[in-house]
Amino acid sequence: MEKLKVSIVGASGYTGGELLRLLLFHPNAEVKQVTSESYTGKFVYKVHPNLRKATQLKFSSVSELEECDVLFLCLPHKSSQNKIDDFMKLAPKIIDLSADFRLKDGAEYKKWYGHDHARPDLLDKFVYGIPELHREEMKKANYISSAGCNATASILGLYPLYKEGLVEEDRTVIEVKVGSSEGGNKANEGSHHPERSNVVRSYMPTRHRHTAEIIQELSFGKNITVHFSATAIDLVRGLLATCHLFLKENLEEKDIWKIYRKYYSDEPFIRIVKENEGIYRFPEPKLLAGTNYCDIGFKKDELSNRLVVISAIDNLMKGAAGQALQAFNIMNGFDEKTGLEFPGLHPI
Amino acid sequence: MEKLKVSIVGASGYTGGELLRLLLFHPNAEVKQVTSESYTGKFVYKVHPNLRKATQLKFSSVSELEECDVLFLCLPHKSSQNKIDDFMKLAPKIIDLSADFRLKDGAEYKKWYGHDHARPDLLDKFVYGIPELHREEMKKANYISSAGCNATASILGLYPLYKEGLVEEDRTVIEVKVGSSEGGNKANEGSHHPERSNVVRSYMPTRHRHTAEIIQELSFGKNITVHFSATAIDLVRGLLATCHLFLKENLEEKDIWKIYRKYYSDEPFIRIVKENEGIYRFPEPKLLAGTNYCDIGFKKDELSNRLVVISAIDNLMKGAAGQALQAFNIMNGFDEKTGLEFPGLHPI
Amino acid sequence: MEKLKVSIVGASGYTGGELLRLLLFHPNAEVKQVTSESYTGKFVYKVHPNLRKATQLKFSSVSELEECDVLFLCLPHKSSQNKIDDFMKLAPKIIDLSADFRLKDGAEYKKWYGHDHARPDLLDKFVYGIPELHREEMKKANYISSAGCNATASILGLYPLYKEGLVEEDRTVIEVKVGSSEGGNKANEGSHHPERSNVVRSYMPTRHRHTAEIIQELSFGKNITVHFSATAIDLVRGLLATCHLFLKENLEEKDIWKIYRKYYSDEPFIRIVKENEGIYRFPEPKLLAGTNYCDIGFKKDELSNRLVVISAIDNLMKGAAGQALQAFNIMNGFDEKTGLEFPGLHPI
Amino acid sequence: MEKLKVSIVGASGYTGGELLRLLLFHPNAEVKQVTSESYTGKFVYKVHPNLRKATQLKFSSVSELEECDVLFLCLPHKSSQNKIDDFMKLAPKIIDLSADFRLKDGAEYKKWYGHDHARPDLLDKFVYGIPELHREEMKKANYISSAGCNATASILGLYPLYKEGLVEEDRTVIEVKVGSSEGGNKANEGSHHPERSNVVRSYMPTRHRHTAEIIQELSFGKNITVHFSATAIDLVRGLLATCHLFLKENLEEKDIWKIYRKYYSDEPFIRIVKENEGIYRFPEPKLLAGTNYCDIGFKKDELSNRLVVISAIDNLMKGAAGQALQAFNIMNGFDEKTGLEFPGLHPI
Repeated sequence: MEKLKVSIVGASGYTGGELLRLLLFHPNAEVKQVTSESYTGKFVYKVHPNLRKATQLKFSSVSELEECDVLFLCLPHKSSQNKIDDFMKLAPKIIDLSADFRLKDGAEYKKWYGHDHARPDLLDKFVYGIPELHREEMKKANYISSAGCNATASILGLYPLYKEGLVEEDRTVIEVKVGSSEGGNKANEGSHHPERSNVVRSYMPTRHRHTAEIIQELSFGKNITVHFSATAIDLVRGLLATCHLFLKENLEEKDIWKIYRKYYSDEPFIRIVKENEGIYRFPEPKLLAGTNYCDIGFKKDELSNRLVVISAIDNLMKGAAGQALQAFNIMNGFDEKTGLEFPGLHPI
Repeated sequence: MEKLKVSIVGASGYTGGELLRLLLFHPNAEVKQVTSESYTGKFVYKVHPNLRKATQLKFSSVSELEECDVLFLCLPHKSSQNKIDDFMKLAPKIIDLSADFRLKDGAEYKKWYGHDHARPDLLDKFVYGIPELHREEMKKANYISSAGCNATASILGLYPLYKEGLVEEDRTVIEVKVGSSEGGNKANEGSHHPERSNVVRSYMPTRHRHTAEIIQELSFGKNITVHFSATAIDLVRGLLATCHLFLKENLEEKDIWKIYRKYYSDEPFIRIVKENEGIYRFPEPKLLAGTNYCDIGFKKDELSNRLVVISAIDNLMKGAAGQALQAFNIMNGFDEKTGLEFPGLHPI
Repeated sequence: MEKLKVSIVGASGYTGGELLRLLLFHPNAEVKQVTSESYTGKFVYKVHPNLRKATQLKFSSVSELEECDVLFLCLPHKSSQNKIDDFMKLAPKIIDLSADFRLKDGAEYKKWYGHDHARPDLLDKFVYGIPELHREEMKKANYISSAGCNATASILGLYPLYKEGLVEEDRTVIEVKVGSSEGGNKANEGSHHPERSNVVRSYMPTRHRHTAEIIQELSFGKNITVHFSATAIDLVRGLLATCHLFLKENLEEKDIWKIYRKYYSDEPFIRIVKENEGIYRFPEPKLLAGTNYCDIGFKKDELSNRLVVISAIDNLMKGAAGQALQAFNIMNGFDEKTGLEFPGLHPI
Repeated sequence: MEKLKVSIVGASGYTGGELLRLLLFHPNAEVKQVTSESYTGKFVYKVHPNLRKATQLKFSSVSELEECDVLFLCLPHKSSQNKIDDFMKLAPKIIDLSADFRLKDGAEYKKWYGHDHARPDLLDKFVYGIPELHREEMKKANYISSAGCNATASILGLYPLYKEGLVEEDRTVIEVKVGSSEGGNKANEGSHHPERSNVVRSYMPTRHRHTAEIIQELSFGKNITVHFSATAIDLVRGLLATCHLFLKENLEEKDIWKIYRKYYSDEPFIRIVKENEGIYRFPEPKLLAGTNYCDIGFKKDELSNRLVVISAIDNLMKGAAGQALQAFNIMNGFDEKTGLEFPGLHPI
C-alpha cells in the first residue's frame, strides 16, 4: 500500500517532535515536510536529539510547504485560526493540535480565551479529537481538533458517569497534577531548573481554559459546572487528574465497574486500573510515558456520595501527539493502534 | 535560667530526629534522653547523619527513661495510649506527636481508626496541638497532642473562613500532595526508589484518618463534611493542601484578605502568600523545608462561588516536630519562635 | 516463519521484566514461560504493571519449565552456575544475564567475586555478550553471557582506543554515574525514597566487580589497570561513564573521530555524540531510556594528553535486556535491530 | 557590642541571596544595603521568597551605595576587577565572591580566563578564601577572595595529602558532580526544566577554570597537574568531588586517617565521614544543604596505589556564601561558627 504523505507545521516544539517520532515509525505514513521558522534548514535531530540516527530530515519554512495528504498543525495559540485557509489549500485532511478549533461555540471561546475567534464559521467543521467519544464522526471527518491534555484525562475519566446522568451537575472538582513538558519548550524564569525542581506549584487554581472543553463534552444538554484546578509538580512527562464527583444515587463500586466496562471494555487505549493490593493500585502516569494509554481508576467514599475518579495519561501522547495519531489512524481507516504499540517502561 | 530537661521517646524516626535537631539548638532545653529500642546504645548520629558533630548523645531503651520536665512521645500508632500511665509518671508535661490523643470523641476515634481507644477517659486532658487555634489552652496545659500534618495544613488554611461561618457545610474538597517522608523511615516495597520516584500516586483517595481532625476543628457546632484525598508525589519533604470550598455569600478577594488578616496578622508562623507576579505567587512547600511556617494563599473563582485555598507546610516541621516545639515554647512561657527561626533555603 | 519458543528464568526482576517486554513485541519470538518462585501463578502484569493489557501470561515455577529454543537466565548471582546443567538440558541455546559466565579465567573470577567458580570448565563455552566486540563468535554461539551495565558503557567507550594500542596502560580512571534501577527490585534501607532521593552516593569507590570484565575485554594481551568508581545518583534508569584516559601519542580530536568511525560507523546501536552547540553536546542517558543505544562522545584536554570519553546507556537495555536481545537476534540470524527500534523520548 | 555595617553588591543572585540570609541572622552584622540594578526599589523577598517576613529591606542601585564596614561583592565575572577602586573607597574590608581575585598570577589568570586581568597589581592583596588553608592570613586581611565551589571541595579533600607530599604530581583525576544552582539564577535553554531534569550532563569535561585554583593551592612549590571534569546532575544544591589520586608510598587507611586528623581535627566545618555500615558511609551533599560543612571521606584501592577521596559541600554555602561568612568572622575576630550553626536536614 502506498504511504500517505504527511507534513507537520510547527515541528520544533515538544508536541511536534513527539508526533514526528511517531510518524517516522508509522508503516502507512511518510513524513514529507516538517516546519520550523527558527530552525529552517537544520537537521531535526539537532532539536529532537532522540531522533539522532532515526532521520536525516531537515526543517523547512512554512512558506515552503507543499501539498500533502494529511497536515498536522502544532502551532502556538491563534496561529491555526489565522492561517487556516492556507492550510486547507495544502491538504484535504487536517489535524490541528492547538486549542483553536476545540470549542463549538464562539461565545464560549471568547469567554475562556478573552478574544473573538477569527473563524467562528469553521468551528463546527472540526471533530473534537477524543476518539472514545467521537470515533464515528472521525471516520468521516476531514478536520479534527485534538483535545487538550488536561481535558482528555478529565473527560475520559468522567464520560461514562456523565453520559449515564449519574453525576450532580454543579459539584465536580477536578485537580490535575502535571509535569513541566506541558508548558512547552520555551525557557522562562519559572521553568529554570533551580526554581522549577521540587515544586508543588498552584499555577492555575481557577479559570483554566481546558475547563471549557470538559464542560462542552460532558454536558449532554444539561447545564453543568466543573471546578478545575491545576498544580505543577516535579515531573517532566505525565498528568494525573483526580476528579471528585458526587453521585445522584447510591452506587456501589461493582455498579461503577459495570458502567466503565460498558463504555470502555473494547477501547484499545483505556485500561481500568483498580487493584486491592500492590504498589500500583490506581493509575500512575509514570508507567504511561511514551504510551497512548489513558488509565482510569476510582474509589467510592463509604461515608458520602463522593466518588473519586483517578485518570492518568502521558500529556504529550494521549494528551497530544499520540491521540492525534490515533485520530489519524481512524480518519484514514488504519488499525487504530498502528504506531502506538509501545507499552511503556517499568521502572522509570 | 536553668534549662528544662527534656526527653524524646521514639527518637529514631523522622519526626523524633527532627525534634531532636531542634531541641539540641534550643537555648532553654537540655536533651536528657532519647530512646530507640532498635538502636539502644548507638550514637544518634548513626541514624540521623545530619547530627554528626552536633551531639555525642546515644540512644537509650525506653526502660531506662528517667524523670524529666517535658517528655515528647514520637511513637507508632497506639503505643502512646497503651503506655500513657508510665509516661505520666515520668514527666509532668507531655507532648504526644502520634495520633492517639487528637480526637476528643471516642466514638469518632473508633469510626476512623477502627478500634476502641484504650484510654477514652484521657481524651479531654490533651489540648489539640495547633497553637493558632488553641494557644490560650496550651499556656495552661500539661498534655498536648500534636496535630497531623495533613490536618495542620488544611485546618490552618480553612479556619478563618469556617470560624466566620462563610463556608457551605458539605461541599469542601481537600486535595493534599505530599512527599515521601510523611510515610516514615521504614523501607517497604512502595518506598523503593525505582517505584517511588516520579510517582503521582493516589495513596488515599478516601477515608484518610486526618479527615476526622479537620472536621473536629472546623465544625464549631455545625455538622460539616470534608471530602479529603491525598496524593503522593516525588518529593521528600513538603505538603501542599489545595482546598476547594464554596462560599455562602458573594465575597471578593479583598474581603477574604481582611478575614485572613484578622486571624493571622499577628501569627509568627503564618504568612499570606498571594502575589500577582513572579514565580512564587502561591504557597510553595519547597521554600519551607526546615521552617515552621504555614504559608496560605487563595484564589476566588470568578465564575462560581468556589474559593481555592492553598496551604503549604514542611510536613516534618509545622506538620510535626516544629509545631510540637512551638507548643513546647507556649506551654513553658518561652518566646514562641525560640529555636524555630530558620527561614528556609532558596533555591532548593 | 515459525517463531522461536523462548522462556525467561527469573522474570520478576527489573531485567527479566524488561526482557519480557521486548520479547512480547518481537516478531520472531514466542514467550512460552516466565518463572518466578515468589509470584508463581500470578499474572506478570501484577509485577510489571507496564504490561497490563499487553499479556495475560502468568509466572511459572522454575520446576515447571519445559523445553524451549532459547532460554534466558535472569537469576541472582551464583544461581546460573549452580543450575546450569539443568538449564542446558532444557534448551540448546542459553543467554545468561547474570555475572556468572562473563569472566574467562577462574582465577580472576575468584579474585573479584571472592569464591571459587562452581563450573570453571564452562567459562570458555560462553561468548562475552557485547556484539560490537564479539559479533562473529555470537553467530556461531550456543551460550552467551550478557555483559554488566557498567562494563558495557566503559568497554564500548574505550574499545577502539585500546584496540589501536593508543592508551597508557595503567592510568585510565572510569567514573560511572548510575540510577537506582541498577540495584534491582528489592527494597532495602538504602533504597528507601527519602534516603535515596537527591543522593550523590559513592557506593563503590573501589573494587567494583565489573572492573574485571573491563580489563578482560580491553587488555589485548597487555597488562592493563583500570581505576573504576561508581556513584549512585537520583535517577531511576540510565548510566553515564566518564572515562579519563591518557594517550600515548599526541592525537587531535579529528584523529580520534576517525578511529571511532572506523570501528563504529556501521554499528546500528552506537552513535558518536559530540556537538559544538546546543544542550545535548555529549551523550545523555535520559535520552536513551528504553533504547538499545550506546552514545559515545569525547573531549581532548588541550593542556595534557588526557582524553575524556563519555559513554551513556540505559542500564536495563544496552546494559542488560536490550543487549541480550541484540545477542539473541545475532545468534539466531535475525536482523540485529529487530524489536529494538524504539528511539527514546524527548523530553523525559 | 555595636554591629558591623555590611552591604552586598549584587544581591539578587543565588550567592548574594544566600549571603543575605546568613547576614540577617548574624548577631554581629547589620545589613545596610543590598544592590541589584534589575530590582532597584523592590523588596528583596520578591526575589528571595524564603526571606518573606524575615526582612523588609529593598534593593538599592550600586550608585546609591554608602560607606560601610565590610562590603561583599557578588558580581558577575570581571565586574569586581573593573570597579574595585570604587568599592575600596566605600569600605575598608572587602570580600569578593567572584573569581576575579582568586589567582595570584596574572599569567595563569590569562591562561584560564582568556583575557588580561584588569588589575594584576591587586592580585596579591587578596587572601585566597579557604580558612582551613589561610586562617592566619585572613585574621590580618582587608581583602579576601572567596574560593570557587568546585575548587573548595577538591582542595579541602586533597590538601593534607598534597601538603605532606604524598601524591604523584601528574595523575590526579577529579570528577565533580554538581547541582543546577551552581549555574546561577538566569534561565536559559539548558536550564529549562524538561531539558535539565534527569540529566547526567558532561558540561565541562576539560578546561574548567576552577582547575587553576586547585593547582595554585595544592602545588607547594612543585609542578603539579590536576585532571578535572564536571558533570551536572538532577540536583539543585550540592556538590560531590570524587578525587582519584595515586600515592607515592604504600599507606594503609589508618595512616590516612591520621593525616586527616592532624590537619582537620580542630576544624569546625570539616567532618571525616567514613563508616563501615549504614547508608551514609561516605560524604553525601544532600545532608549538607544549608550548612557550611565540608564532609570528607576516602577509600584506598587494595589493588593499586589509588586513593579515592570523596568530598561534599553545599555549593552555595561552603562553596560560596557560607565560606565567605566564615572568612568574615575570622577577619573580624568573631567566633568562626557565628551564623553558621545550622546542622542540615534529614531526610531531605
